[in-house]
Amino acid sequence: VNFTSDNCYGVAPEIAHAVAAANEGWARSYGDDAITRRLGARFSEIFERDAFVFPVISGTAANALALATLVPAHGAIFCHAASHIAVDECGAVEFYTHGARLVGLDGCNGKLAPPIVEAALSRFEKGSVHNAQPRAISIAQAAEVGTVYRAQEIAALSEVARANGMKLHMDGARFANALAALNAAPADITWRAGVDALSFGATKNGAMGAEAVVFFAKDDAGDFEYRRKKSGHLLSKMRFVSAQLEAYLEDGLWLRLASRANALAAKLADGTKGIAGASLAYPVEANEVLMRLPDAVVARLREAGARFYDWEPPANGTRLIRLVTSFATPEQDVADFIRIARG
Amino acid sequence: VNFTSDNCYGVAPEIAHAVAAANEGWARSYGDDAITRRLGARFSEIFERDAFVFPVISGTAANALALATLVPAHGAIFCHAASHIAVDECGAVEFYTHGARLVGLDGCNGKLAPPIVEAALSRFEKGSVHNAQPRAISIAQAAEVGTVYRAQEIAALSEVARANGMKLHMDGARFANALAALNAAPADITWRAGVDALSFGATKNGAMGAEAVVFFAKDDAGDFEYRRKKSGHLLSKMRFVSAQLEAYLEDGLWLRLASRANALAAKLADGTKGIAGASLAYPVEANEVLMRLPDAVVARLREAGARFYDWEPPANGTRLIRLVTSFATPEQDVADFIRIARG
Amino acid sequence: VNFTSDNCYGVAPEIAHAVAAANEGWARSYGDDAITRRLGARFSEIFERDAFVFPVISGTAANALALATLVPAHGAIFCHAASHIAVDECGAVEFYTHGARLVGLDGCNGKLAPPIVEAALSRFEKGSVHNAQPRAISIAQAAEVGTVYRAQEIAALSEVARANGMKLHMDGARFANALAALNAAPADITWRAGVDALSFGATKNGAMGAEAVVFFAKDDAGDFEYRRKKSGHLLSKMRFVSAQLEAYLEDGLWLRLASRANALAAKLADGTKGIAGASLAYPVEANEVLMRLPDAVVARLREAGARFYDWEPPANGTRLIRLVTSFATPEQDVADFIRIARG
Amino acid sequence: VNFTSDNCYGVAPEIAHAVAAANEGWARSYGDDAITRRLGARFSEIFERDAFVFPVISGTAANALALATLVPAHGAIFCHAASHIAVDECGAVEFYTHGARLVGLDGCNGKLAPPIVEAALSRFEKGSVHNAQPRAISIAQAAEVGTVYRAQEIAALSEVARANGMKLHMDGARFANALAALNAAPADITWRAGVDALSFGATKNGAMGAEAVVFFAKDDAGDFEYRRKKSGHLLSKMRFVSAQLEAYLEDGLWLRLASRANALAAKLADGTKGIAGASLAYPVEANEVLMRLPDAVVARLREAGARFYDWEPPANGTRLIRLVTSFATPEQDVADFIRIARG
Repeated sequence: VNFTSDNCYGVAPEIAHAVAAANEGWARSYGDDAITRRLGARFSEIFERDAFVFPVISGTAANALALATLVPAHGAIFCHAASHIAVDECGAVEFYTHGARLVGLDGCNGKLAPPIVEAALSRFEKGSVHNAQPRAISIAQAAEVGTVYRAQEIAALSEVARANGMKLHMDGARFANALAALNAAPADITWRAGVDALSFGATKNGAMGAEAVVFFAKDDAGDFEYRRKKSGHLLSKMRFVSAQLEAYLEDGLWLRLASRANALAAKLADGTKGIAGASLAYPVEANEVLMRLPDAVVARLREAGARFYDWEPPANGTRLIRLVTSFATPEQDVADFIRIARG
Repeated sequence: VNFTSDNCYGVAPEIAHAVAAANEGWARSYGDDAITRRLGARFSEIFERDAFVFPVISGTAANALALATLVPAHGAIFCHAASHIAVDECGAVEFYTHGARLVGLDGCNGKLAPPIVEAALSRFEKGSVHNAQPRAISIAQAAEVGTVYRAQEIAALSEVARANGMKLHMDGARFANALAALNAAPADITWRAGVDALSFGATKNGAMGAEAVVFFAKDDAGDFEYRRKKSGHLLSKMRFVSAQLEAYLEDGLWLRLASRANALAAKLADGTKGIAGASLAYPVEANEVLMRLPDAVVARLREAGARFYDWEPPANGTRLIRLVTSFATPEQDVADFIRIARG
Repeated sequence: VNFTSDNCYGVAPEIAHAVAAANEGWARSYGDDAITRRLGARFSEIFERDAFVFPVISGTAANALALATLVPAHGAIFCHAASHIAVDECGAVEFYTHGARLVGLDGCNGKLAPPIVEAALSRFEKGSVHNAQPRAISIAQAAEVGTVYRAQEIAALSEVARANGMKLHMDGARFANALAALNAAPADITWRAGVDALSFGATKNGAMGAEAVVFFAKDDAGDFEYRRKKSGHLLSKMRFVSAQLEAYLEDGLWLRLASRANALAAKLADGTKGIAGASLAYPVEANEVLMRLPDAVVARLREAGARFYDWEPPANGTRLIRLVTSFATPEQDVADFIRIARG
Repeated sequence: VNFTSDNCYGVAPEIAHAVAAANEGWARSYGDDAITRRLGARFSEIFERDAFVFPVISGTAANALALATLVPAHGAIFCHAASHIAVDECGAVEFYTHGARLVGLDGCNGKLAPPIVEAALSRFEKGSVHNAQPRAISIAQAAEVGTVYRAQEIAALSEVARANGMKLHMDGARFANALAALNAAPADITWRAGVDALSFGATKNGAMGAEAVVFFAKDDAGDFEYRRKKSGHLLSKMRFVSAQLEAYLEDGLWLRLASRANALAAKLADGTKGIAGASLAYPVEANEVLMRLPDAVVARLREAGARFYDWEPPANGTRLIRLVTSFATPEQDVADFIRIARG
């Protein structure tokens, strides 16, 4: 029973198969192979617009390289204070941008909103060389606490961004989970809502190690390819990364995998309703459940072998824990967790 | 018939199998899994000494992260002028070190030697803040032109390094090919000869994307793990990289694969002997053949579909071409190449 | 009537004289001159301990180079949210550290205190490569709002720092003002209280452009000299910077200049007492007065030609303004300001 | 008798006077003062074109900030192998560009020429992410060995630069010496000959510490101001740097000072003609003399107290020494040197 993260599960069979199938004879290296060359068209079709697609192998690389392409060293990037780029990536964005500043903002349900961004903007003096200059907003879809931005929420942030000379970046490590939750078209929650660059994640949702940075305008892609190479993120046998992405997008696999993970999260939320002292900390919209449980319940679960993280230090006899479900989490694990939790 | 590079071939069956086998249930992420944890012991056994092993997914990342761990921003790194880090990695070392200088030196048969290094050292004023300070020597084993350093050659360079406060780094993108050629113990051409850090390559010799930075003293590893994370090179599903390395080292697979590639290179060299105007530019010691051929022969080969790179601009009716053989190059391709070349 | 900043005034006559006097014949360049070589002994005497002193020409350079010497790229630096390094230096610390993170903390009277630092520490997972690692605390003495740390306050912060593997840096852009206010020995509020590195400012207090980074242990100075050169901060005619520092420290000039500035600030605070709607936002301890004044009073002052900055956006009919006095602010300006403010 | 460098002499009286005169009342800080604001017009007049002028305090800062503004991290910069940026600045360019590569080329009389640049260009594969991309040529005027580029030589390099998407940067640490030697208009050897950015030096020729980066097109200046601030090179009391530059350009002072230095160098060259075993290594065109002298002569000079640097390790009983004259070198020193050398 492991709900620590969706990245502790392996590879979806269809993707594993595609990796194996890509192992045929020789191919041009460094992304000049047939599979990688097909990706642009595939993403363009799915996003209903010319997409400029660059596979990488980690979400941290995707976020940091994308933001470094969009934001100069003297820039500031607004993000949620609890976001992955601010908390969990050891300062990768600051490293790749050569010292741009991440400005962590609070926001309801783990999401940014225009008034919060505007309040932060008022603290920066535009055009002053003494101040970092706000140049991008980065949001996570799904957000770090499992909530999901609606298309109009994204569009509203994009409006603020555009009005202030900022780009809008989306950390889509759990993009498929968000998309499945919203039942929207990929375009609706990206470029149509004003997103300039997307870190398109597949790893957490069944790939072995495959992400893609997607720009929706050629100019935004700038010198991305040089940055990827200079940082060692251009793989010689790129076809094996691209094959994962291709299989992931084939026949809606990505959405099926994500829907399954989302459904299990919903089950966890439903199944724990009514436990004395239990409560959800955030709406359960994708594949994460952040819930408060009494210490005794948490202890019982851990004794029974359940794995999950505390999200905050314990307080007042309760704990805020985070449960992440994945494409491969066994149904039985969910059932077991609920049973033990209910006591 | 493709001799452009050993990285255009895919994955050895044993390694592909290990990747598939690693896809079982869940595992702790970011390298805290059982397979990755076994690697330290495995490398230590093979290298007959405690080895500090960090998997990454590209040779450029391995080289740049290793050198940045060893060399400060004000350092200089001596390497062969034609080396991969100097020519083919878009300045990754300079990026990761924040501006250390690569000093490209010439050297017979693509290899550095003590007098060359000492002559270069005399051009740097030790302790002067105006001059970059020599801090490392980086050699490639096998070297860029397919030659191989003998243990005593490495030890001699190491002596110069040590006497001048420099570390010795080895770019082992083709380490197995060198080892197979020398019929030496891994320890003999690394730490016993004074190597401090090794970029241990597997990708070119049958892995999908798996390299490891190996330090032979804990202190040298320094803050490597933070550097790897901060640059996006720590993979969440690391077990699939580690599984490749484990399989690669199992039962001597790595040396079998390398020996096969080396043997094919030797065949190419032998088979083209005696062609009018043909000559080897360097001793063929590993899996690369750099040979001069008359333009007409080169044209005939290319018309027949053979792929390979020119290594220098054409001159005087001949071309210096590079042929790289791999673990998976078909025997028939070698035979075909020779037949067509002989005309 | 200009209270915008202490850096809008020029050079104290004694310092101007020393600069002129240094212009004699030739001297060895790049800090190898007699004046610069005397500085170490002079600072050591004043600080009652071997001091390792490196002149630079701006406070931003002093802070960023000092912190980059102490903190690796994966480090985090705790500072007050309103501190100069966090707000006014365009991310220089992030640039020089290659992406270390400034963690802006709130704190009473513009000062950090142990509980605030400890609360922040609890949000970082020690030894986790995913998190920036707390490596330094940086405090400003005097603080950004004109308050001053007592020796025991500094010592308490130092204890937390040491217990957590962090260094303690002091931004002393207004060090003389703090020292004059406390009537303490320089040692008392630096190394004796646990400060590891001091950005010793002279520019704001009567120099032309002269600061010094002072380390109190040789090991802490590390590769500072290379960093200074590599960033273009080592001046060829360094003697003219060093002459400023020497004159500044001669016969207590620095403390006389600072005391005068402090006294004028006290006068401003006293003289505006009792104005309806006026109040001090912080204790006036050095040479800054942050006071709230009714909009009408502020408007009257500005119409009369007084210059000063708003410190916060206007609210509720009042403004928080900042008045900075300097070694050279005319007494008359203070009197005029008070008179106009009183209406 | 000191011929080590022109930067070992102090400040010309006119410039010292201007610095003292600038010390009047208050001024807006960070370059927003009246003197600094006048510089743009002054340089534009002198260069006969709108000039975008940014004062800094060291030549290393000027070169590194200028080149970092023009060249991305994946860029390569061609320069003479013996140039100051390549040899004497501890890798400042690499630091500020985040890892661009300096490509040191040889060239007759310390100068680059089109065929050398074109040969180097042929070694870089345009548009390949594996190779650093040539983006700038940087030449020194006067060159490191005291020779001077003619306008048509610069124009020829500029043509190659433009044809290959490269910018042309001029390190003018000794710009006045070159200009005085050529008796040309400043425009003739800068923008009219295709120079995009000039590091305009004054320090070596009589200023205390004052250089200016001059761009000849607004677009080229890009985000220079942010880079200058972020690296700590924007001075609060900038007026004292600007006052130096203003005085330097007043009434042709800069050219008078440079002409004097040049004339002394010519005297040194003339006066040592005919000494047995003596020979000039390069044409003496500005204020440097590189001459070979027999060991015995060099020893006699040093015993008599003459100071100068060896330019190469001694060989065959002779030494190549460098003599630099300055605006303030005493005539008597030149006479003494010649007398002692002649024996």
